[in-house]
Amino acid sequence: MSDEPSAQLRTFLPEFRWEGVENRPYKEEGSAPFRAIARQVLFTEEGLDCELRYFEMAAGGYSTLERHEHMHGVMILRGRGHCLLGDEVRAVKPFDLVTIPAWTWHQFRASEGEPLGFLCMVNRERDRPQLPSEAELAALKSVPEVAAFLAG
Amino acid sequence: MSDEPSAQLRTFLPEFRWEGVENRPYKEEGSAPFRAIARQVLFTEEGLDCELRYFEMAAGGYSTLERHEHMHGVMILRGRGHCLLGDEVRAVKPFDLVTIPAWTWHQFRASEGEPLGFLCMVNRERDRPQLPSEAELAALKSVPEVAAFLAG
Repeated sequence: MSDEPSAQLRTFLPEFRWEGVENRPYKEEGSAPFRAIARQVLFTEEGLDCELRYFEMAAGGYSTLERHEHMHGVMILRGRGHCLLGDEVRAVKPFDLVTIPAWTWHQFRASEGEPLGFLCMVNRERDRPQLPSEAELAALKSVPEVAAFLAG
Repeated sequence: MSDEPSAQLRTFLPEFRWEGVENRPYKEEGSAPFRAIARQVLFTEEGLDCELRYFEMAAGGYSTLERHEHMHGVMILRGRGHCLLGDEVRAVKPFDLVTIPAWTWHQFRASEGEPLGFLCMVNRERDRPQLPSEAELAALKSVPEVAAFLAG
């Protein structure tokens, strides 16, 4: 990721793209724990202690199921979907706010007919995400609503 | 401002309000250097190194003309207006991004017929804003486009 300062005004373009911001689709391989998701880094600056990123999943796509020490502050911008937060599943719509506390399993899923796009504020300095072990995944799936969410 | 952790999901309400988020209109007094502006703090958490705030000006309202060492990362969310950035005036619309570098004079103004609402990401630890001196204001007004902007 570049630490070049961004231009002072970057205009919004059709299809939730921004002038001067690279769109980075996540590369799907055999065991990729995500589907049809791309990232645009909107603010990453030496003088700002957080970054602001925009993530978008195509209809039916989902983010990685993960947890970490660092928090996320999320605002939905586009579409409809659900998020898993610990052992709760919640429907989300534009401009809803989601706080993801430290060490909380989380995943976002777009609805079948619509993309899901959201802003995510995160500390510039942060730890790497953890993926669930088999045992942790089994524990998550012991909650029927969570099992249904994870099954798509 | 409270450092209570926010609920994990806070839904978006009509008129750009959020569940559980206090709307704080700035109190206008005789010499108030702003007009018709209110703030909602969307994320302020011990574990996040930035805050995310939503500012909204009613039609014809404006923010304080100020500068400071800390940066702002801004995304317009609602309405139309203009921003002053140093000696440039730019029109803004929803989802445009504005980067306000250190020590840059800046002010936002809503258009006459519409409110202007924007997200502002800022470091939790930051210096206090400075207001322009008479001489600095005169220097800003020496640029005709800036003078027109400041006159409303």
